[in-house]
Amino acid sequence: MLSCFLYLLAFFSQFYTRAQLNDRESAYSLPQFCDSALQNQPRLDRLAVWDKQLSSNTMSPPYKLTATQVLELLHNNTLTVEVYARSLLDRICERDSTVKAWAYLDPDYVLSQARALDQVPTDRRGPLHGIAIGVKDIMNTKDMPTQFGSPIYKGHRSDVDSSAVAILRAAGALIFGKLTLPIAGKTTTTEFAVTNSGPETTNPHDPNRTPGGSSCGSAAAVADLQVTLSLGAQTGGSIIRPASFTGVYAMKPTYDVISTEGQKAFAPTFDTFGFFARSVEDLQLLADVFGVQDDSTPSDIPLEELSVALMKTPMWDSAGPGTRSAMETTNSILTSEGFKVEDVSFPPEATDLATLKNVQKVITLSEARTMFLREYRVGKEKLAPQIRGIVENTSNVTNKQRTEACDTYASMRRAINDVAKDYSIIIAPSAVDEAPLGLDDMGSATFNTMWTAS
Amino acid sequence: MLSCFLYLLAFFSQFYTRAQLNDRESAYSLPQFCDSALQNQPRLDRLAVWDKQLSSNTMSPPYKLTATQVLELLHNNTLTVEVYARSLLDRICERDSTVKAWAYLDPDYVLSQARALDQVPTDRRGPLHGIAIGVKDIMNTKDMPTQFGSPIYKGHRSDVDSSAVAILRAAGALIFGKLTLPIAGKTTTTEFAVTNSGPETTNPHDPNRTPGGSSCGSAAAVADLQVTLSLGAQTGGSIIRPASFTGVYAMKPTYDVISTEGQKAFAPTFDTFGFFARSVEDLQLLADVFGVQDDSTPSDIPLEELSVALMKTPMWDSAGPGTRSAMETTNSILTSEGFKVEDVSFPPEATDLATLKNVQKVITLSEARTMFLREYRVGKEKLAPQIRGIVENTSNVTNKQRTEACDTYASMRRAINDVAKDYSIIIAPSAVDEAPLGLDDMGSATFNTMWTAS
Repeated sequence: MLSCFLYLLAFFSQFYTRAQLNDRESAYSLPQFCDSALQNQPRLDRLAVWDKQLSSNTMSPPYKLTATQVLELLHNNTLTVEVYARSLLDRICERDSTVKAWAYLDPDYVLSQARALDQVPTDRRGPLHGIAIGVKDIMNTKDMPTQFGSPIYKGHRSDVDSSAVAILRAAGALIFGKLTLPIAGKTTTTEFAVTNSGPETTNPHDPNRTPGGSSCGSAAAVADLQVTLSLGAQTGGSIIRPASFTGVYAMKPTYDVISTEGQKAFAPTFDTFGFFARSVEDLQLLADVFGVQDDSTPSDIPLEELSVALMKTPMWDSAGPGTRSAMETTNSILTSEGFKVEDVSFPPEATDLATLKNVQKVITLSEARTMFLREYRVGKEKLAPQIRGIVENTSNVTNKQRTEACDTYASMRRAINDVAKDYSIIIAPSAVDEAPLGLDDMGSATFNTMWTAS
Repeated sequence: MLSCFLYLLAFFSQFYTRAQLNDRESAYSLPQFCDSALQNQPRLDRLAVWDKQLSSNTMSPPYKLTATQVLELLHNNTLTVEVYARSLLDRICERDSTVKAWAYLDPDYVLSQARALDQVPTDRRGPLHGIAIGVKDIMNTKDMPTQFGSPIYKGHRSDVDSSAVAILRAAGALIFGKLTLPIAGKTTTTEFAVTNSGPETTNPHDPNRTPGGSSCGSAAAVADLQVTLSLGAQTGGSIIRPASFTGVYAMKPTYDVISTEGQKAFAPTFDTFGFFARSVEDLQLLADVFGVQDDSTPSDIPLEELSVALMKTPMWDSAGPGTRSAMETTNSILTSEGFKVEDVSFPPEATDLATLKNVQKVITLSEARTMFLREYRVGKEKLAPQIRGIVENTSNVTNKQRTEACDTYASMRRAINDVAKDYSIIIAPSAVDEAPLGLDDMGSATFNTMWTAS
């Protein structure tokens, strides 16, 4: 029951009834584009254009590069945004039938945007000029539909970007398309016993494994070199876990340091915006654009003086062999490099698993009840039974329980902060183990939820 | 300095540079409508239609009625939505040049919506069928512009309603128009020493006095019988204080019990949605539509058994004669009616004014910095210097200060909850005194801020 609830924390979109798969085709001009592109202009010919521009056959094609590398090539005119975008589209044409990461993608529109960016004078280019960014399909984009994986929002368009997308656009980013999120799957009749059935999206490293949820498309597209950066959101473990399953870097800053305005809310206390990349430099690039700063650790401190806490967390018992081995390897590498590494326990106030889970459950259910009232009032019949149950408060969460949960949560956060303040870095597991086999089970968020709003 | 900060908490829109007054005319088809209406169909003639429908000259014209009363007349077919809407528009034509509460109003569109509502079959009518509701101009409406009082959002339209507006529309409400909020006014060069210059909106009881901010239009329009219900938002004291200044009822529920999705964010920890009405029954009507419930006090408890706490709060010293007298009168009435009334002090953890104000300041500045980054990146030159200063963090708020403020705030909230749990009702001042003279000073939020997120 409780472990099922953790799924609930991690995936909100799967509560909607199954719609996205059917809609994917219609919202999606990729197959036609790839067919005609392949027919009219063979891929190798187009890559030859790229090769010619580079005047070298030894460099990587642009789709393989990080944002930092692409920016450098764009800056010294070795590359145009259009050629870079074509390279990504070629990669997508090659891989989409396997990975299926996109909820919406219009290649012709992408190319027209790319050409427009190429026309921007050098002195008016932003810090992300031309960089391709995929957007999780719960964030409004003024030029593409945003469906939240829900039939209620079929064909929904906003003529206003979400706050984050507007900031990226102002920085010159090429908003590429919308990335998948989980959809309503097999459900049992048991309250909250949600069996997670993911969308078709597969793990790029093994199509038989899940990329993790709920930012599955965002993680898979970046991991598969289909887009350079992507945006995701985490309420339970929806950024950190898919990043771990697909082997990319991700950043989930603390709450309210990046605005979630224009992003579908689930449980505001936990809802966090974040992003995926293939290098730490790229994460830093995005953090700078969003003004995310760590003002507590001096930037000139020698690495050896950084104190590292290894926190196995109260749920360590559930860690599989992959996670155990990763933590040991991390410890060895850091120690051998001269870091001060310390095994640190969770503070007693935040160690009781049952309390921790109950607090998260009560806050999430109370807030989700508020956040989905609109969909309930507008189209109750199109909501999955689970979410109807949340709005109808079938679990009878009282205001008093909610107030107490908020208070307990605040105490836990304070206790964790008290421990954390003595360390420069905390290392903790991102997932129970490697990505599970099958696409139905998108994995447990047990190692993520307690950090989400800490 | 600190008292100025409280203004900052209460009004966010005035940070934008002065734009709304100039835009008001163009966004506004009311003058033409009133002119032509008066020319083509004299007001008295149209009221005669209404009088005829009622077959009585003794009843109040519809614009004077509460929502509960209008619903009854609509239900028994004594009134149509169109006649009711015409009555409100007549009232507005008569009073708008004095009160100036509307940021956007299209009377012809209102009437077409009213006629459409009259066509809805009886068995498909919602709980607010036909009730006119004005919307504060920081909440998205799919059929009207939303300008947030900012030149950055001039002519801004969203094709999606805010969550609250969608819920009201689904309940059958007649979304009437957009109500004013403060605009950028005279500012000094002192950081955060914002002198609040309100919009033209006046207090219906005395055009020389402010209606209070920031939900000034929302309070004034309801108080002046121009619309039956209205929506507002409070970050500092932006609902409770204007309700007090204009003498109407208002409800600011606790945070996250009504979704603020689609409403401009300022400081999410404090941002709250709420509403204005002219009767307690009407507040209950709206609370029901939004699913706001008090599940802690049994509804069948005899009134005399309710325990009432009279809380003068730590800022009682600033209370003027009006507020002092109101608190005394309240005490006498309740006591003479047999209620158990007790003078209750704030808990020691929440009594230190300097700490209280600092906590609010740090949280608000940190969060506003995040929330206005978008506007800063998109159109820095159109932002008032104060808000640019917040985004540039000219007051040097650190992450550590923010974390500590969140922790202190959580402790204060817990301490207040501990005291509050022993009482059924807490009565506290809504404002320092009656509405101040002049439109520039929209009043202090000192009595509101500490309750906003408690």
